[in-house]
Amino acid sequence: MYILQIDFPFDGPFGDDMATAMQPLAADIATEDGLLWKIWTENADSGQAGGIYLFSELSAAETYLAKHSQRLAAAGTNDIRSRIFAINQPLSLINRAPL
Amino acid sequence: MYILQIDFPFDGPFGDDMATAMQPLAADIATEDGLLWKIWTENADSGQAGGIYLFSELSAAETYLAKHSQRLAAAGTNDIRSRIFAINQPLSLINRAPL
Repeated sequence: MYILQIDFPFDGPFGDDMATAMQPLAADIATEDGLLWKIWTENADSGQAGGIYLFSELSAAETYLAKHSQRLAAAGTNDIRSRIFAINQPLSLINRAPL
Repeated sequence: MYILQIDFPFDGPFGDDMATAMQPLAADIATEDGLLWKIWTENADSGQAGGIYLFSELSAAETYLAKHSQRLAAAGTNDIRSRIFAINQPLSLINRAPL
């Protein structure tokens, strides 16, 4: 399993308004190949948003990152910061990770 | 609930060697106030490591970040990048997030 973390500058909407605006996108993301889950992140104070994703395969994370980066850029979102990591399972299990 | 994401340059050890070396630290982290879970992240190819944490309270995430940053710096790890985010719950639940 692989973690994909993405964050970027974001002017909103945040909170419930974000949930309403992005619901169709979340429904689409739910169907992505290899995606186990996504946590949607937001920080209205710093003007940032992003996501933490768990993928079953590295290739799926890479494919999704390319697709999502294009989608964000098309929506005018730049300065996207992304990292893909393997997971250290023994240490994560000591810390109650939901894997 | 709040997500804390941390990553930094890291020369290893990775994998099973990392798990052995860091097991006492993971056991200590497991007792942190307000920590629900941590996923330990690593990328031997890019020479990076870090963690994705879920905290029950913002103040707990901030307190832990200050403590962990000091610990990493004392171990010679600099260029630490951290972000704290709120979670958009409706969107995350559509995407099967383990919250």
